[in-house]
Amino acid sequence: MKRVGLIAGNGDLPIYFAEAAKNKGVEVVAINITAQAPSDRLESIVDENYEISVGELDRIIKRLQASEVQELVMVGKVNKDLLFNIDFDKRMLALLNSLEEKNDDAILLALVEELEQEGIEVKEQTTYIEELLSQTGALNQVEPTEEELADMRFGFKMAKGIGGLDIGQTVIVKEGAVIAVEAIEGTDETILRSGRLTDGGVVMAKVSKPEQDFRFDIPTVGVQTIKNLIEVRAKGLVIEAGKTFVVNRKEVFRLANEAGISIVAM
Amino acid sequence: MKRVGLIAGNGDLPIYFAEAAKNKGVEVVAINITAQAPSDRLESIVDENYEISVGELDRIIKRLQASEVQELVMVGKVNKDLLFNIDFDKRMLALLNSLEEKNDDAILLALVEELEQEGIEVKEQTTYIEELLSQTGALNQVEPTEEELADMRFGFKMAKGIGGLDIGQTVIVKEGAVIAVEAIEGTDETILRSGRLTDGGVVMAKVSKPEQDFRFDIPTVGVQTIKNLIEVRAKGLVIEAGKTFVVNRKEVFRLANEAGISIVAM
Repeated sequence: MKRVGLIAGNGDLPIYFAEAAKNKGVEVVAINITAQAPSDRLESIVDENYEISVGELDRIIKRLQASEVQELVMVGKVNKDLLFNIDFDKRMLALLNSLEEKNDDAILLALVEELEQEGIEVKEQTTYIEELLSQTGALNQVEPTEEELADMRFGFKMAKGIGGLDIGQTVIVKEGAVIAVEAIEGTDETILRSGRLTDGGVVMAKVSKPEQDFRFDIPTVGVQTIKNLIEVRAKGLVIEAGKTFVVNRKEVFRLANEAGISIVAM
Repeated sequence: MKRVGLIAGNGDLPIYFAEAAKNKGVEVVAINITAQAPSDRLESIVDENYEISVGELDRIIKRLQASEVQELVMVGKVNKDLLFNIDFDKRMLALLNSLEEKNDDAILLALVEELEQEGIEVKEQTTYIEELLSQTGALNQVEPTEEELADMRFGFKMAKGIGGLDIGQTVIVKEGAVIAVEAIEGTDETILRSGRLTDGGVVMAKVSKPEQDFRFDIPTVGVQTIKNLIEVRAKGLVIEAGKTFVVNRKEVFRLANEAGISIVAM
């Protein structure tokens, strides 16, 4: 029987992955690498379940090897401000210090290489969960206005630019102006900031990078995204078709329909 | 005798301009367009001093024409969130509505064109105040470390990218990671946010856009910038040589020296 490693960050994505893998008869070895990873919930799904901090790279690798994991996926959010707030083992420190620029891609690519040198292949995040990606078009029952569609196109373009610099994936726009750009503070704080800077009516764009590596960092939206958008009285959300995960799809669309927020994939 | 219009936003830049122009024997007609413009202080310097909201475009133009102004400069900060918080006259509304994307350049360029159609030429912001620009090199007495210099180069590059998208001019970095990007919230809030996201040690980069129009929006740093950097325990500030204003230079350097913040123009 096949066996796969699951490096689990925050959110529901690790749960979706674990369930999908198990449904396909694959054994799952989960390593929860953040304090907010869903370790409790994974426990009843996966075959082996561990909690090892993302800073303890050597323990993570030794654990995977001991569990005979040759392939893994890394899913779930790891807030990059962890970089400034947790302890690192020597191996993780050496990896970080070897990097000239500590942007997301550089860190994650170095991690992938370190794992592959140890005989562990990192697979695309879409493995087993392609159904969380969306087709092009309006996704829920709220039709965007012409103005909102224009802001969606503008926001999409701006978010692509930010992604091209590997700074972040999310941009909030209103009436053709960029209100907030996501860097290390994360999507939630970026949305909430836009609420303090406007009286509502914003559109959020979340897209993949122009050279997105599908092994990590595929943009993801979920219930928390919509709750934040409701809080700032947003009008729309645009994501990239085929390249953005929507998790808890049913609840996401229900909340958006209720709040009059249109969700479009382009 | 020559006469020049001064469209004054917030900060000390309008004062510097007015003093420099008067010292060269030029008459100055000031129009303070924000509630925070230094109208009180300009009054004793300039020949005519008015307060007309940036939203009252028609009144501004008629006032300039009545005062026989054929050339003007626009200096001082106008926070773009005003766009969402003040009333506009019909002329300003028509101008804003004619724009597909309401980014800084689009708005300011439309303003320039509107003024020029009325026979009023907009001059470069450096007119009379070139001495506020800096030469390449270390500007104060604090020598940056190798790491800080690397962050300055990285931040400079990232800020150029953000400027290329016409989103903002300021980026805060630390150890090769982008901590905060300025959009509509302004520089002060961007710096302060980086303080909540790190335990200090950041470097701020403020640069001109790749295709900077010198008639508006030349990046500016001053005492408030340094005070904010001190508050977040920053290590450095990098600006663009020949393309960034440093106002209150003496006080800026004194505060930075005291706080161990190196200021470099590159």
